[in-house]
Amino acid sequence: MRIGVLTAGGDCPGLNAVIRSVVHRAVTTYGDEVIGFEDGYRGLLDRHYRTLDLDAVSGILARGGTILGSSRLERDRLREACDKATDMVEEFGIDTLIPIGGEGTLTAARMLSDAGLPVVGVPKTIDNDISSTDRTFGFDTAVGVATEAMDRLKTTAESHQRVMVVEVMGRHAGWIALESGMAAGAHGICLPERPFDPADLVKMVEERFARGKKFAVVCVAEGAHPAEGTMDYGKGEIDQYGHERFQGIGTALAYELERRLGKEAKPVILGHVQRGGVPTAYDRVLATRFGWHAIEAAHRGDFGKMTALRGTDIVMVPLAEAVTELKTVPRDRMDEAESVFQTRIL
Amino acid sequence: MRIGVLTAGGDCPGLNAVIRSVVHRAVTTYGDEVIGFEDGYRGLLDRHYRTLDLDAVSGILARGGTILGSSRLERDRLREACDKATDMVEEFGIDTLIPIGGEGTLTAARMLSDAGLPVVGVPKTIDNDISSTDRTFGFDTAVGVATEAMDRLKTTAESHQRVMVVEVMGRHAGWIALESGMAAGAHGICLPERPFDPADLVKMVEERFARGKKFAVVCVAEGAHPAEGTMDYGKGEIDQYGHERFQGIGTALAYELERRLGKEAKPVILGHVQRGGVPTAYDRVLATRFGWHAIEAAHRGDFGKMTALRGTDIVMVPLAEAVTELKTVPRDRMDEAESVFQTRIL
Amino acid sequence: MRIGVLTAGGDCPGLNAVIRSVVHRAVTTYGDEVIGFEDGYRGLLDRHYRTLDLDAVSGILARGGTILGSSRLERDRLREACDKATDMVEEFGIDTLIPIGGEGTLTAARMLSDAGLPVVGVPKTIDNDISSTDRTFGFDTAVGVATEAMDRLKTTAESHQRVMVVEVMGRHAGWIALESGMAAGAHGICLPERPFDPADLVKMVEERFARGKKFAVVCVAEGAHPAEGTMDYGKGEIDQYGHERFQGIGTALAYELERRLGKEAKPVILGHVQRGGVPTAYDRVLATRFGWHAIEAAHRGDFGKMTALRGTDIVMVPLAEAVTELKTVPRDRMDEAESVFQTRIL
Amino acid sequence: MRIGVLTAGGDCPGLNAVIRSVVHRAVTTYGDEVIGFEDGYRGLLDRHYRTLDLDAVSGILARGGTILGSSRLERDRLREACDKATDMVEEFGIDTLIPIGGEGTLTAARMLSDAGLPVVGVPKTIDNDISSTDRTFGFDTAVGVATEAMDRLKTTAESHQRVMVVEVMGRHAGWIALESGMAAGAHGICLPERPFDPADLVKMVEERFARGKKFAVVCVAEGAHPAEGTMDYGKGEIDQYGHERFQGIGTALAYELERRLGKEAKPVILGHVQRGGVPTAYDRVLATRFGWHAIEAAHRGDFGKMTALRGTDIVMVPLAEAVTELKTVPRDRMDEAESVFQTRIL
Repeated sequence: MRIGVLTAGGDCPGLNAVIRSVVHRAVTTYGDEVIGFEDGYRGLLDRHYRTLDLDAVSGILARGGTILGSSRLERDRLREACDKATDMVEEFGIDTLIPIGGEGTLTAARMLSDAGLPVVGVPKTIDNDISSTDRTFGFDTAVGVATEAMDRLKTTAESHQRVMVVEVMGRHAGWIALESGMAAGAHGICLPERPFDPADLVKMVEERFARGKKFAVVCVAEGAHPAEGTMDYGKGEIDQYGHERFQGIGTALAYELERRLGKEAKPVILGHVQRGGVPTAYDRVLATRFGWHAIEAAHRGDFGKMTALRGTDIVMVPLAEAVTELKTVPRDRMDEAESVFQTRIL
Repeated sequence: MRIGVLTAGGDCPGLNAVIRSVVHRAVTTYGDEVIGFEDGYRGLLDRHYRTLDLDAVSGILARGGTILGSSRLERDRLREACDKATDMVEEFGIDTLIPIGGEGTLTAARMLSDAGLPVVGVPKTIDNDISSTDRTFGFDTAVGVATEAMDRLKTTAESHQRVMVVEVMGRHAGWIALESGMAAGAHGICLPERPFDPADLVKMVEERFARGKKFAVVCVAEGAHPAEGTMDYGKGEIDQYGHERFQGIGTALAYELERRLGKEAKPVILGHVQRGGVPTAYDRVLATRFGWHAIEAAHRGDFGKMTALRGTDIVMVPLAEAVTELKTVPRDRMDEAESVFQTRIL
Repeated sequence: MRIGVLTAGGDCPGLNAVIRSVVHRAVTTYGDEVIGFEDGYRGLLDRHYRTLDLDAVSGILARGGTILGSSRLERDRLREACDKATDMVEEFGIDTLIPIGGEGTLTAARMLSDAGLPVVGVPKTIDNDISSTDRTFGFDTAVGVATEAMDRLKTTAESHQRVMVVEVMGRHAGWIALESGMAAGAHGICLPERPFDPADLVKMVEERFARGKKFAVVCVAEGAHPAEGTMDYGKGEIDQYGHERFQGIGTALAYELERRLGKEAKPVILGHVQRGGVPTAYDRVLATRFGWHAIEAAHRGDFGKMTALRGTDIVMVPLAEAVTELKTVPRDRMDEAESVFQTRIL
Repeated sequence: MRIGVLTAGGDCPGLNAVIRSVVHRAVTTYGDEVIGFEDGYRGLLDRHYRTLDLDAVSGILARGGTILGSSRLERDRLREACDKATDMVEEFGIDTLIPIGGEGTLTAARMLSDAGLPVVGVPKTIDNDISSTDRTFGFDTAVGVATEAMDRLKTTAESHQRVMVVEVMGRHAGWIALESGMAAGAHGICLPERPFDPADLVKMVEERFARGKKFAVVCVAEGAHPAEGTMDYGKGEIDQYGHERFQGIGTALAYELERRLGKEAKPVILGHVQRGGVPTAYDRVLATRFGWHAIEAAHRGDFGKMTALRGTDIVMVPLAEAVTELKTVPRDRMDEAESVFQTRIL
């Protein structure tokens, strides 16, 4: 069998573990040939690819990033890809295409599948916001990085009677904020799923200080936003080059709290540190299992689907299901976190 | 409501997170009183306990071990506890007892429950071998520690053309060996679930060196054992005090491989390092959720059950179910690992 | 003997290790009494202090922050302290005052010493910018945090053909930027010690990409600044509350590089994460040795001095020497880093 | 200039950082050619070597082990090397040989130097036992690994009222035990520099338990040994293959303490985990500086010396000095540790 693999979208710890697993299973068990397209779908269109043998994936299991590179494909080039899909199958002689990526990549995968390409998808997002899989690899690593950062910040915040506002990733879903906030014992958590009122955070902080606590840590998802009319936010600022720069919610909220509390409040924007580096054991195992099952699906001819975690099992779910809606934080998960941390999730 | 909590059995990262979560939810949401029994069931019998308020659990979320201490209860004292169960309920005025522990502790919990105590159990084992829950807290931390150790060992093994035999925890179930072995890319994995033949490991190592690889790492669960007649093992040795000391499988296997391969093979016994220290974010979240749901169950009067993870949900399962059989590594999980690592799981 | 200890200025991993060491040595070896003033010199003036016995310092060795709290003393209150110094000695019956802090704290310590207080200082700064000591504790931890962050960022930068600009601490001295930049293999390093020209960074990045490298990481000290006329910087922006907010150099430089390179350049501001959390073994040992030698000096009556590391020895140096000038990165250290990383330090 | 580099002896985090630094400085600054001999001196004798250009050392800065491989050279082969030294210089056209290694390697380096080879040595040992340099790279990483392990063990020991005996590396010098023991707050430390009496440890543990402490951690260097007649030790045991196996001091001491205390005492042998993996920032910087200065020395024609750390400076010291005697833990360093931890160093 001839298998093509590519990684697309924002990168994510565990991508190399999937590639390695795909190659190991395909080459050693089935004697398949595996080719890797460079920089996502672009490599497919521009015919940039290389053969991936056992040596090519040696030593990459614990490495962050992706040895294949990644990029986002423009809509029109994607359409182009779909039109040419069947030709490409012939040209490359690919029996299965395995795109590893997030919502956008899987939507493209679905289009290619509808266009007739034999596709097996592997979901990837540190945001953990893909429906029909319990978890995605990369998420655990991102939560771990954010949690360790907050562990560190708590000690310094405590010594200086300071409020720390930590902005973590999560544009549309608050999973990283929810789990790292719970893990680190943040005193307030702001999610994209529910607009927050800064007044609630002010109240929480004041109550803590009244109880003799000397600090507070607020964990904010980058996609969180204040409720209508509660806080002036989102007005872009003009930077020195005349570009309008929007201030992140973490920075804006820290300033707002400092202003309202009359206490020092410092923003910390974790940013891309959450995306990189050595994946946790959890993510390496999940990524490895995804790669293994993708090859099994390919050899079963089980196309148009993606790998997914359900409980402790890896199952195949139709791409159609996977990309219909974003998996956001449900009400009951917010309730859990709230009561434990004695503060409304905002 | 008056709630008693205790931790029993071997300790496990995340115990303090459960205690904290129980106290936070009970005290702040329901205005309950929580008392903690010291050193497991022993504290219950010897009336050693203290009140746990919010201050008592402040700052323990990320701390390993258990602030309540732990111990194993002798069978007869357990029976004693069951006989006195109902009296004790009255004596302490406990409305719910929340024992946090492993198979032994939950069996005791079940007996106490049958004896009429209102019990809500919380499962705990780094071995992840409790049935009817997808995972237990502490396991992820243990796997992380073992994986990081093997990551380190690979670089030094590679530089010295050496075989490393890493013994990880897992007396009756090989989950830690399976997942840390997969995560670290071990070249051989030995589980309690299936007797191994050293000859297979010798073959694997020789094939690797023949392929120009300069090292091999074998991950062995402490409960793994060689197949009948494949290797002389288990004969105790007499130490300098005349005690018979049984050599661990890791050490014995390293010697055996060194002897058969004529190559340096070094044992590394990770031991208790896997049990201690700061829990991973994953374990803190799971432990926190368990504690939260235990209190919910108590207030629903949902007794004789324990908290369990099913997919992404926390559910309550009868203690009866939970302790009937050990959750061991199933055949298909072995298959996954095998093919990825090009070596039979032994 | 009666010994007073306090921690002042920005906090720093290792402060608790010093406090613990002071108490252990003083109490167990000399049978001294130790009192700890709260929130730095403020506790001295406001008479907020508590006795520190062995139990009070149990378990704090590896904890970040300071159990005594910290604050910056306003100049006038400091003068007040000096005027009252001798009275306070009598009032508290202190035989030795041990202030642990940075440049400001040690200057105050010197004034108090000149005013007649028996003072033994312990230097503390994560910036490592105190002269007459080879290193200060906290610095190693900060460098470690910054290095690990850049290790992570390199993998994600590589996968996305991106330039990362990482801003680390160091307002007046670039030690953290120099050592974390060297340790992480940053491709450009900007220090406060020497104004930089963005054009040099642009050149370096373009040369890298020309050589087929797909990313670059630039490490910038928060106190670094562009050479006169090379880049528009430092013009404050008006935020939504009408406050002028100065954009940090990391953010400004990332925008500048993006504009000039036409390539994505992302700023990452590590901020307070560098200050908090578990100190490295190196910092714990150095802090412990400082505390031990401070007590020895107190009992020798060796006042008006501070502990310092010289090679592998701890020596006592006059406070007068210590605070005269900042220890900045010397020319030859820049040369080393430059050539190794094939780029001028800017 | 044509420069040969090799790594010999036990491996050590930071070796790759030296190789990288040597190549960067030599190639980019001086346009030198660098060749790397494989597996230490063996590669020199067997003519196994390869050219090292910038690409060859790309991405190795943070990698443990050594890309050149390592081995110990037998005495006679070493003599052979010395006899052929001058011929080899001509054969390879090497203008400078840079051997990176420990005491054995540097002794060989000195012999080769005496035999007429232009040699610049770089010291390497995780044991930190080379005289005339304040520190060696690899040591900080080893201490960090040992410290983190003891941090973890303390929490589990505390929960189970248990004594932990942790054996760390250090055959002839106790630096790792001293510094990791201090950093982790071990309650007893046993060094090769001074025979210990188990009775002192028993006393210390009993006093701790009498004070209500629930655990103790003892840090033992692998080269530590009991004082004459204090404990039966060192009698080899016959393993199942009839080989005499000597029980490590950590295991023997744990059994001895368990027997005398009547309390559970568990040995943990850290072993090779201390040698491998990602070097700390400190070690990467020191290794990088050593490499840089080795090339400077080569171009100055400053041969027969090795790089050394003195305070914050890198200096060149004659190989003759470096290898005359082992750098062991001096009396005053023991005194510091003792008093802080309220227990004699044994």
